[in-house]
Amino acid sequence: SRRAMGRAMGLAGLLLGLFLVPAVLVSTSLRHGVPLTEPETTRELAEWEPVSGTVREDSLWPLPQWLRTSPRQLQLAPGRFQLVHGAGSTAGPDCGLLQDAFRRYIEYMFGQSRRRTWGRRPPGGLTGPELWELQVVIEAPDPGCNSYPQLASSEAYHLTVTEPVAILKADEVWGALRGLETFSQLVHEDDYGSFLVNESEINDFPRFAHRGILLDTSRHYLPLKSILTNLDAMAFNKFNVLHWHIVDDQSFPYQSIYFPELSDKGAYSYNHIYTPTDVRVVIEYARLRGIRVIPEFDTPGHTQSWGKGQKDLLTPCYSGERPTGSFGPVNPILNTTYDFMSKFYKEISNVFPDAYIHLGGDEVDFSCWKSNPEVREFMKKQGFGIDYAKLESYYIQKILDIVSSYNKGYMVWQEVFDNKAQLKPDTVVQVWMGNNYADELSSVTGAGFTAILAAPWYLDYISYGQDWKKYYKVEPLKFSGSEKQKKLLIGGEACLWGEFVDATNLTPRLWPRASAVGERLWSSRNVTDLQDAYERLTNHRCRML
Amino acid sequence: SRRAMGRAMGLAGLLLGLFLVPAVLVSTSLRHGVPLTEPETTRELAEWEPVSGTVREDSLWPLPQWLRTSPRQLQLAPGRFQLVHGAGSTAGPDCGLLQDAFRRYIEYMFGQSRRRTWGRRPPGGLTGPELWELQVVIEAPDPGCNSYPQLASSEAYHLTVTEPVAILKADEVWGALRGLETFSQLVHEDDYGSFLVNESEINDFPRFAHRGILLDTSRHYLPLKSILTNLDAMAFNKFNVLHWHIVDDQSFPYQSIYFPELSDKGAYSYNHIYTPTDVRVVIEYARLRGIRVIPEFDTPGHTQSWGKGQKDLLTPCYSGERPTGSFGPVNPILNTTYDFMSKFYKEISNVFPDAYIHLGGDEVDFSCWKSNPEVREFMKKQGFGIDYAKLESYYIQKILDIVSSYNKGYMVWQEVFDNKAQLKPDTVVQVWMGNNYADELSSVTGAGFTAILAAPWYLDYISYGQDWKKYYKVEPLKFSGSEKQKKLLIGGEACLWGEFVDATNLTPRLWPRASAVGERLWSSRNVTDLQDAYERLTNHRCRML
Repeated sequence: SRRAMGRAMGLAGLLLGLFLVPAVLVSTSLRHGVPLTEPETTRELAEWEPVSGTVREDSLWPLPQWLRTSPRQLQLAPGRFQLVHGAGSTAGPDCGLLQDAFRRYIEYMFGQSRRRTWGRRPPGGLTGPELWELQVVIEAPDPGCNSYPQLASSEAYHLTVTEPVAILKADEVWGALRGLETFSQLVHEDDYGSFLVNESEINDFPRFAHRGILLDTSRHYLPLKSILTNLDAMAFNKFNVLHWHIVDDQSFPYQSIYFPELSDKGAYSYNHIYTPTDVRVVIEYARLRGIRVIPEFDTPGHTQSWGKGQKDLLTPCYSGERPTGSFGPVNPILNTTYDFMSKFYKEISNVFPDAYIHLGGDEVDFSCWKSNPEVREFMKKQGFGIDYAKLESYYIQKILDIVSSYNKGYMVWQEVFDNKAQLKPDTVVQVWMGNNYADELSSVTGAGFTAILAAPWYLDYISYGQDWKKYYKVEPLKFSGSEKQKKLLIGGEACLWGEFVDATNLTPRLWPRASAVGERLWSSRNVTDLQDAYERLTNHRCRML
Repeated sequence: SRRAMGRAMGLAGLLLGLFLVPAVLVSTSLRHGVPLTEPETTRELAEWEPVSGTVREDSLWPLPQWLRTSPRQLQLAPGRFQLVHGAGSTAGPDCGLLQDAFRRYIEYMFGQSRRRTWGRRPPGGLTGPELWELQVVIEAPDPGCNSYPQLASSEAYHLTVTEPVAILKADEVWGALRGLETFSQLVHEDDYGSFLVNESEINDFPRFAHRGILLDTSRHYLPLKSILTNLDAMAFNKFNVLHWHIVDDQSFPYQSIYFPELSDKGAYSYNHIYTPTDVRVVIEYARLRGIRVIPEFDTPGHTQSWGKGQKDLLTPCYSGERPTGSFGPVNPILNTTYDFMSKFYKEISNVFPDAYIHLGGDEVDFSCWKSNPEVREFMKKQGFGIDYAKLESYYIQKILDIVSSYNKGYMVWQEVFDNKAQLKPDTVVQVWMGNNYADELSSVTGAGFTAILAAPWYLDYISYGQDWKKYYKVEPLKFSGSEKQKKLLIGGEACLWGEFVDATNLTPRLWPRASAVGERLWSSRNVTDLQDAYERLTNHRCRML
């Protein structure tokens, strides 16, 4: 994120002053009343005037870090306007990811209109100056067409829209995807059915590198189509992480290759599963939109559904000296548990290409462990006394070591940090508890760990009216800590837990409410004007629909 | 409603003891622990035992007033099973309403399966006893095929399911529609794809005659398809009134024949309107499902959108001695206002066949009237002093008289009653204010007026979790008053105001939450077991999906 910002600012310096027509200059920081904190841009923008009246940024979401726009409009001819690879780009027609994105964005911009026969008309058919094409130039030696997005990927881009061609420059394809989304948001249809774009220049990059949506496919199964639709909506809002909370107590829809019984017995039905093909479809659909897929296989709690297909995995609960027949968290005292987990996470490490796996570790209920005489005996042997958090950490530590051995990083819920497990330096700790999340962010980053914030963004909690404002007003960096600590907060996630969510209500419940989180995580810290956000969000919602 | 109940109870007496196989007898009153209050049935049901275990009523919603069911299952062959007119029915193949219902319910019950080639197989293809057909017998001399449902329509029905034919008896087609819905809920598919129904007897009728859903098409326009889908859902839940809050401050989507400028200028756009054809489609689609359509044209408040297309209709607001350029409620002091309203409501009376029109009358803001010197002068002349409620009543009285002159009844929001307008005896007063709605019900019925309850069922207010329980727990008759007063409460409405509702979220926001209101208004007062309701509602939701 920091790297991307530095680079984008450099580009801005190079490209200022390109406009030949009188330009309306809009700085997103001035417009919102607070100067940018980055010294490079503050100097440049200080002399410009804020603009009133309608400029096309009125529908941009999330708002770019820096933009200027001119009242001069260019016309686009559907069917003739093209998205093309620009001269000097390291990506070309063999870049499937960009080819796919070109097709997608032409469709978003023109829809049915692109099937008109514009191509056969002479250019004189248009009344104003025309924009012929958008040239996409990828500058890195490896454009990334066949790779997966990562935490360190650059999403910065620079876009200039001037007659007769627009140019979109990005280091990697991930920035080009973000720039294509922004360009498509600039294009609008007027009352006469003409497609127009204002001459503009945009310099943009994300404020935070990790901008996630958590979907829960255990409480209710979500059909593949719902997940894919959600990935589209994420791309419209420049989210870049799908946190796939794929299994939980209620059901185990992940069809494991090594342990097919887990879903055979733990899924809601034979049909309510994600096959290996389904999983690949999700991962590829996400990749094509610059979205990472981080699966969560939460243990040792939240695992009731695992027990149905894997004998002896869960702890038998006791009442006095007798097993009750019910089970608690994963049984941490058996070697077979770790044999299973070792094999299971090996599969997960192979199936999911992302460098991170989310290992959960939240809300472990100790009562079953406490009831079990063998667990108590084990506690004694290990010298844990009656501190079951130590047993939890003992278990988690082994899982962390297993996953590390497959060269994967891990994300965990905050309890794992709170219970003082030994974490690798690149661990991402997800802060979710609503009370005093700022203090928790201080602690986590103070201990030198990377954090993401979810606590204020549990979007499954609904209430009457415009609660998006509440999500929008959150300032993630408002916690005590040094500059170094602040840099360790790498982003956040909007979480849509599935207790009351399924395919029937997922989209209208999550969007555009999650868009508020999207802008908070992408745009500049000082983009906080609620009325301005309301107007842009209204337009953005309409475009998404 | 009372009439229907008496009639249905009589039928029950005639038909008891028909079963030839050992029958599991289930009284919905006993099952829920409280005896029925009707003396006829209490005696009959007292000796029966409540049943545990799975019987098919586990998916019935709303729960019928009286049912017994046998473990003996009959098989239905899709493609061979038929819905037919029974011997002695006053309705036949020329009854388009029933023909349409037959086709619809065959589709609901069997879906794709009815296209299987069962018809060509010998009867031996089925393994158990078969149900060949459901015979529908309408008993009234005029079955009502070409009429509209009314407040006094009978919705009672009696259903017996025994080998080899089931019989559904009803006074009018409206009861047959309710019985077809119940029959379709009895039919279920087993794990082998066989369609089964338990031998059963059901005697059913609504507790309240007015069971409505309010949709608001002004705050957000709802496409025709959303309204029709909602009518389907209403039929699944035995609702019988669509309260169409069609216009309001925000927009005027109703395309008037006499005053087309109202929607030309007052609708959100040229497209966001309901044409006369659209309105006819809604009314007919509703009629075919036994649902009345009561339009609400709310005045004198909530009328900002009217002012755009009708000059001088609204009151000009003043600041000191000068008009501000903004407008308040309908201007009650001009003769032109009543000329317009007279013509307008004449059109509405013709377009909407229901005997009732909802005239609104809620939330009138007096500040603009107070600011206007001509209004103040008028107040003086009329001797109203400074009591603007008197001016409001003056206006409303004239509107009531206009609408009465077209032989229409009217519904009004509670303020019209509170402000002491002279109401016709058949006026329906809708109680919506959340504080002390029981007291308001006492007052309204105490004054001899008919009331419906909406206050506890504003379903646009959302909150986390299972708020349907809150709606379900409401007991409408829990207010102080005589038996005679209780009879004046004729039902209720679940209201979905449109500030935060449009086509994207209407269905999942309203259903199945409104189902809770549906059962409260249809089923017996003692059907209050939350766990039982939860299980049935879960199945009912699945079926609706």
